Amino acid sequence: MTEQKATNVTWHDHTVSREERHKLKGHCGAVLWFTGLSASGKSTVANTVDHKLHAMGKHTYVLDGDNVRHGLNKDLGFSAEDRAENIRRIGEVAKLFADSGTITTTAFISPYKADRDKVREIMDDGQFVEIFVDASLETCEARDPKGLYKKARAGEIKGFTGIDDPYEAPENAELVLDADKNGIDDLADEVIAYLQGNGYLAAE
Amino acid sequence: MTEQKATNVTWHDHTVSREERHKLKGHCGAVLWFTGLSASGKSTVANTVDHKLHAMGKHTYVLDGDNVRHGLNKDLGFSAEDRAENIRRIGEVAKLFADSGTITTTAFISPYKADRDKVREIMDDGQFVEIFVDASLETCEARDPKGLYKKARAGEIKGFTGIDDPYEAPENAELVLDADKNGIDDLADEVIAYLQGNGYLAAE
Repeated sequence: MTEQKATNVTWHDHTVSREERHKLKGHCGAVLWFTGLSASGKSTVANTVDHKLHAMGKHTYVLDGDNVRHGLNKDLGFSAEDRAENIRRIGEVAKLFADSGTITTTAFISPYKADRDKVREIMDDGQFVEIFVDASLETCEARDPKGLYKKARAGEIKGFTGIDDPYEAPENAELVLDADKNGIDDLADEVIAYLQGNGYLAAE
Repeated sequence: MTEQKATNVTWHDHTVSREERHKLKGHCGAVLWFTGLSASGKSTVANTVDHKLHAMGKHTYVLDGDNVRHGLNKDLGFSAEDRAENIRRIGEVAKLFADSGTITTTAFISPYKADRDKVREIMDDGQFVEIFVDASLETCEARDPKGLYKKARAGEIKGFTGIDDPYEAPENAELVLDADKNGIDDLADEVIAYLQGNGYLAAE
């Protein structure tokens, strides 16, 4: 196999360039990386943003934790190492999607700064938009749609983010959404406004 | 983390459905899986198909072995196990791209039937288009642009497909391209004609 023997694997130029793909789509590719506590609303905001962008004729895709766990990452468990690898692979796939011109949304708790920063590092400048869905632990615990906080408080779940495992809030996120104060639709509109204001929704 | 505790991970419906994404793009997503010997011309045909589809206004992406090796699969080596995992991950990513509505092209030797069949199995019906770029060993060896066959014959490279490692030709490929007889452009047009004739280039 060719790839087996290559000692110097180089990045091949595609016949169709990224710029040509962007031009066809009428906008740039990007990764909208939502992060926040469980029950912060990040998945709902992410899906709402995706829906609004689609309605605007933008080409989008949601990399969903559950779907990825079923397929690409089905060999990974929940050890610290596997959780880091889970985020790494999602980052790499998101990068490929962004390269294809797709506005790609992910919504993982992704509690550790180091993991998120590694994803940022593999992206080109501007490709990675970190969006911190900032809901207080009190808000999240009051919502608790799956009863997970309750179980974590009761000691039935170990290593739960915000209870007995840290959430490292982003320090330099492109966007911080106040999910204690504002509703889903307003938060989604904030994201759309950011993308519009920063040139993401037009081809380069 | 939500995902950490979920014992029954279920496939979430996206807010935007696959059909809606296809409608926006004006065509279906699919995986064009090129397979064949080293120097059979499969990458060149694959890139030419991608180029032609793009020129027709179709949304395409090439999952390139080298690019994937740099990123998603950079943790993989060349053991039998890692080579199978390499193909598995590419298949899973291709499936996500097809789900996004993108006509996704891959061109890996992918010599083992079992590995290719596993990729086929994870796809929905019709999503996977296996394209066998059928060039004789003589043709490939005569081309040998990287001098790899020469090295394999000299014993400097071990486990080289077609020399001391088997290539298991597809038995039920959607398309078999005669790369001994026909040139790149004609082969690419055969692929386009197949896609057109089988409804891939229109939205469902």
